[in-house]
Amino acid sequence: MLSPLFAEYPTFLVFLAVFAAIVLTMVFMPPWIRFLKSSHIGQQVRDDGPETHLVKQGTPTMGGVIMLVAVVVAVMLIGFPSAETYVLIGAILLTGALGLFDDASKVIHERSLGLTPKAKLVGQFAIATVFAVVAVNFFDIPPTVPIPFVATLDLGVLTTVVPIGEGISLPWLYLVFVNILLVGMCNAVNLTDGLDGLAAGTVMIVMVVMAAIAYRTDLLEPAIVSAALAGTCSGFLWFNSDPADIFMGDTGSLALGMGLGCLAVLTKTEFVVIIIGFLFVAEALSVMIQVAHFKRTRKRVFLMAPLHHHFEKKGWSETKVVIRFWIISGVFAAIGFSIYFAASTMGVM
Amino acid sequence: MLSPLFAEYPTFLVFLAVFAAIVLTMVFMPPWIRFLKSSHIGQQVRDDGPETHLVKQGTPTMGGVIMLVAVVVAVMLIGFPSAETYVLIGAILLTGALGLFDDASKVIHERSLGLTPKAKLVGQFAIATVFAVVAVNFFDIPPTVPIPFVATLDLGVLTTVVPIGEGISLPWLYLVFVNILLVGMCNAVNLTDGLDGLAAGTVMIVMVVMAAIAYRTDLLEPAIVSAALAGTCSGFLWFNSDPADIFMGDTGSLALGMGLGCLAVLTKTEFVVIIIGFLFVAEALSVMIQVAHFKRTRKRVFLMAPLHHHFEKKGWSETKVVIRFWIISGVFAAIGFSIYFAASTMGVM
Repeated sequence: MLSPLFAEYPTFLVFLAVFAAIVLTMVFMPPWIRFLKSSHIGQQVRDDGPETHLVKQGTPTMGGVIMLVAVVVAVMLIGFPSAETYVLIGAILLTGALGLFDDASKVIHERSLGLTPKAKLVGQFAIATVFAVVAVNFFDIPPTVPIPFVATLDLGVLTTVVPIGEGISLPWLYLVFVNILLVGMCNAVNLTDGLDGLAAGTVMIVMVVMAAIAYRTDLLEPAIVSAALAGTCSGFLWFNSDPADIFMGDTGSLALGMGLGCLAVLTKTEFVVIIIGFLFVAEALSVMIQVAHFKRTRKRVFLMAPLHHHFEKKGWSETKVVIRFWIISGVFAAIGFSIYFAASTMGVM
Repeated sequence: MLSPLFAEYPTFLVFLAVFAAIVLTMVFMPPWIRFLKSSHIGQQVRDDGPETHLVKQGTPTMGGVIMLVAVVVAVMLIGFPSAETYVLIGAILLTGALGLFDDASKVIHERSLGLTPKAKLVGQFAIATVFAVVAVNFFDIPPTVPIPFVATLDLGVLTTVVPIGEGISLPWLYLVFVNILLVGMCNAVNLTDGLDGLAAGTVMIVMVVMAAIAYRTDLLEPAIVSAALAGTCSGFLWFNSDPADIFMGDTGSLALGMGLGCLAVLTKTEFVVIIIGFLFVAEALSVMIQVAHFKRTRKRVFLMAPLHHHFEKKGWSETKVVIRFWIISGVFAAIGFSIYFAASTMGVM
């Protein structure tokens, strides 16, 4: 709504989105925490985490609800009411709803597992597929994966045109890639969300870079959404820092991961985002490696997976793991941005 | 040295300065910690801090030495070998040396107070005065204080020209202002350095903004120095996060404060820096208010000064105080940057 007023000052709009999301998150989170506490809605801590984490039993979860509210309100206030904004926000909200359903059923059934993992995945794949199809057919996103300094992989070569309306193109290889990217990011951020402030801080860093990339590519709408996501993560950290007053829950982490994936598609950084968000990728890989290696050899590669628990087991304090992971995340985000920046400046992307 | 090679890609140089400083800090800090530990050179914790901080007794200090080494090496490797760089780095190093003298004498005499506070202040004022005189006479820094959207205060109105060489102008009102700003920032950052990661994190945030301002004003040398300072702070956080393996000491905090003040002079953000670094200002103000109020009324305004101890006493965990202060610092830095950015875009600064 503010966008026409400040159309000449796009930087200002992006900054405003950060501020609005921080303020909204900080205003609405305390009553939400009070409500959850008074309703005795607390987190069931996973049985298979470190023993020291049992003290987290009872801390309210579903902080992601307020994060998503803050992002939606901030974007509606500041952003452009366009199809692109709606679809991006739609994908984030639907994924958040999926997470909320899971969080809520955990609380209601007082178990640590809500939806079956398969049901969650099916939902995520459905959202990712719809997003990819809409992006390719209506937002002119080419079915390619640009790898800076190397090549732009054209995954649309085997495009099938389905005669719906004017003909909708379904570049299946790109759809497969986007599905893996989006669902992968969802679950990678979800796995990262295991220590107080870890997911919120790392996503904030990554979203600042995504906002910079979107802004530089003249994609003001995705830039505003990224900025709002960065803002809400900062505001959430106020409450989520050790000892956490609230967790974001699957509502938050799945939605943030989906948002990151979708932003990568819209900004054509499908490859670079893997570097920018490498910490999430590493967390996910650590679980896969651990499980795969254990199944074959009955031995563990890490003291505990995901990665952050490994370092806790090695004796790092929770705060040290979180801050060091933020630093690592910042370094990868900066490397990714530099690569993107250099490649786009030199025109080799 | 790398500057001629990448002169066409100034952004790259700034990023490189961040990386170089992080890497150098992370490489040299562990041997430095080992050396200090094996020499039994530990911090004497102030008697008047919270009791819980007595566990910090024995943690090595003077981490600032490696931070300054990292900054100097990074800037020499990447920056432009110019008079401006040398003077800026010189002011930072001299202030660091002052702090080091203090840190070292504390360790040697096993007391928590090294140099007399008066001697430290005299040294800081001397450095600030020389810097201001050089900046005005040789770097064409006008003796003004631009207040965005309001006015540019001309503090050079009563300039005295002293006949040394070609005549050196001594705008005394501006010199007084710069002295207060630089010495104030030194001691404000010094006071902020009371919790693990607090000073390093907040200075890092502030230096990122200073780098952006310098870069936007086409002052590549100060941008590279700011970037290196931001980088070394990030690298230092790796070791300084709770529980700290090392403290930066006065060597670090005084030098970082002086660096911030000098950068404000070079980028003509003498006023805006007060907003950008408002957290440091607030920490310093809290001490002044506490002391002044106590002297008059024998009552305390804060449970304990500086401000971060007040919130600890209120029951926030150390990590929560640190992360919340980072968020506050980030918000003020962003507000300051937005004001600067808007004013310079509209040409009212």
